[in-house]
Amino acid sequence: MAETSNKADYLVGVDLGGTKILSGVFTTSLKCVGRSKMSTKAERGPEAVVERIAHCVQDVVDECDLNLKQVRGIGIGAPGSVDPENGKVMFAGNLGWKDMPLKRELEDHLGLPVFLGNDCNVCALGVHEVELEGKPKNMVGIFLGTGIGGGLIIEGKLYSGFNRTAGEIGHMLLEVNGPKCTCGNRGCWEALASRSALFRQVQQAVKDGQKTLLTSMLGDDLRDLRSGDLRKAIKQGDKFVEHIVEEAAKYTGIAVANLINVIGPEVVVVGGGLMDALENEMMPVVIETAREHAFPGADKGVKILPSKLGDDAGITGGAVLARRETK
Amino acid sequence: MAETSNKADYLVGVDLGGTKILSGVFTTSLKCVGRSKMSTKAERGPEAVVERIAHCVQDVVDECDLNLKQVRGIGIGAPGSVDPENGKVMFAGNLGWKDMPLKRELEDHLGLPVFLGNDCNVCALGVHEVELEGKPKNMVGIFLGTGIGGGLIIEGKLYSGFNRTAGEIGHMLLEVNGPKCTCGNRGCWEALASRSALFRQVQQAVKDGQKTLLTSMLGDDLRDLRSGDLRKAIKQGDKFVEHIVEEAAKYTGIAVANLINVIGPEVVVVGGGLMDALENEMMPVVIETAREHAFPGADKGVKILPSKLGDDAGITGGAVLARRETK
Repeated sequence: MAETSNKADYLVGVDLGGTKILSGVFTTSLKCVGRSKMSTKAERGPEAVVERIAHCVQDVVDECDLNLKQVRGIGIGAPGSVDPENGKVMFAGNLGWKDMPLKRELEDHLGLPVFLGNDCNVCALGVHEVELEGKPKNMVGIFLGTGIGGGLIIEGKLYSGFNRTAGEIGHMLLEVNGPKCTCGNRGCWEALASRSALFRQVQQAVKDGQKTLLTSMLGDDLRDLRSGDLRKAIKQGDKFVEHIVEEAAKYTGIAVANLINVIGPEVVVVGGGLMDALENEMMPVVIETAREHAFPGADKGVKILPSKLGDDAGITGGAVLARRETK
Repeated sequence: MAETSNKADYLVGVDLGGTKILSGVFTTSLKCVGRSKMSTKAERGPEAVVERIAHCVQDVVDECDLNLKQVRGIGIGAPGSVDPENGKVMFAGNLGWKDMPLKRELEDHLGLPVFLGNDCNVCALGVHEVELEGKPKNMVGIFLGTGIGGGLIIEGKLYSGFNRTAGEIGHMLLEVNGPKCTCGNRGCWEALASRSALFRQVQQAVKDGQKTLLTSMLGDDLRDLRSGDLRKAIKQGDKFVEHIVEEAAKYTGIAVANLINVIGPEVVVVGGGLMDALENEMMPVVIETAREHAFPGADKGVKILPSKLGDDAGITGGAVLARRETK
């Protein structure tokens, strides 16, 4: 519970995903004082989603015994291709959005300044500022979830490149004739090591007759499979699941090595829901494989760390964005 | 021939390679007025090589009817891992150098300020400043030769990252179980598409009984094989050589797509000796493959260009470095 104050001393961070909206209230020193969660319901259309975001923000502010006047600004990370300057989501496949003026719409609803960024960029900002205290000059943030995304901090600042697509690291091709990816290519990192890739491999193998504890846990169709189930199965000695997760960790280690060779970061942070659920199983393999594959000398002194922020990375980064923009 | 002047109005750029030293005299507006070339003779040891570099610089200055007093500074690109701040070559495998204070040694020999950079970084600087007139904010320079190296311009400046190894793009892994690379890994871009990779593939295939025009041109051992011979064989209808070069171009296109996805540059320039010799054969395939594999939207408006500087990229970049540092 936050102390009552009449000054606009709070920040709100929002993480807009294809299935859920997370919001969090933060102090200006970036301490989280409350969280709220709501389903996105993208199928109801953009207007309804904007209302739900506004609702989720109002809920969390009220939950903290605050009112909107005490909020200085709102930072929001949105999926897909985002234009931060104009506050627009240019394209977001999983929301079915195109050219959506999210900043303006939310400002109309809430009467507060809203700042927008790509979801993985915003997560990287949160990790850099809160988890690493803004220290590394150059950082790569990797987020393993349904897909794989990234955010780059270069010379201390979020870097998004010419088309604001820098950090589309999930579509780095690692295996020329590898499995098909949603982007149309084959062998992208995302098609080899994301949660969707793991689930697809498990489901295909079960269909082909593979025995696994997962079916006794969840039934043959594995409809409700979650990342945590993979961890449980491994803990119970399921060698098949262990192997699939280990392969994904190896590909991730190779991708980390590629990123170290190309970008030369001081720190690589690996986060996201999949890593959160399988950190103990994946992270040692990721680090070992990355060190093996980095160009000699390129990984010297480079830290490869799991993110501790987990699901909070997005709302934290949103608060960082809001703080930066309202300073 | 340069006009006589008593002011230090000239710059010298040096490109130090494992087999040859190139030097060039440039006006302060970066026009090249003379070039010189000498073999490196790395086997004679570092002292001998430094003397040869000094000799090569003196030769080209004299050739231009100038003297060293008319030279403002010398910029040099050296292979391997380079520490520009301390003017040292930390490690260069093909020269057999370790911890070599090249800047100080050359300054002692020539009595002029010397500035040092990694060879591919210096080439990228030359391409950016002279070929692209310093315009693109973000650029990736790719140099295909015996190996594959790169240089990154980020926010208008040469970017070398935490260990000064950013741009070690040749060791980006593209094919998990691909051919062995000199770095110890398998499937690096350099092991798939460098001049050494192409020559190795040709020589292995010939050993395995493959017929090619190259053997009638050069004899069965192909000892004197050069990039230009591949071009000649293709022009004469050698489908085997055409296929090998096309595969290398495809891998290069995939690597370009990866770099576009990760870094989001405005321009990608592809240069180096191999590209210089095989531009017509490789570049259209590189561009087509890169466009096919880039993440939708990420390559929009991104220029993918061959470098026209060819072998002059290194000496030009050296002059740019010298000009920048003596301003």
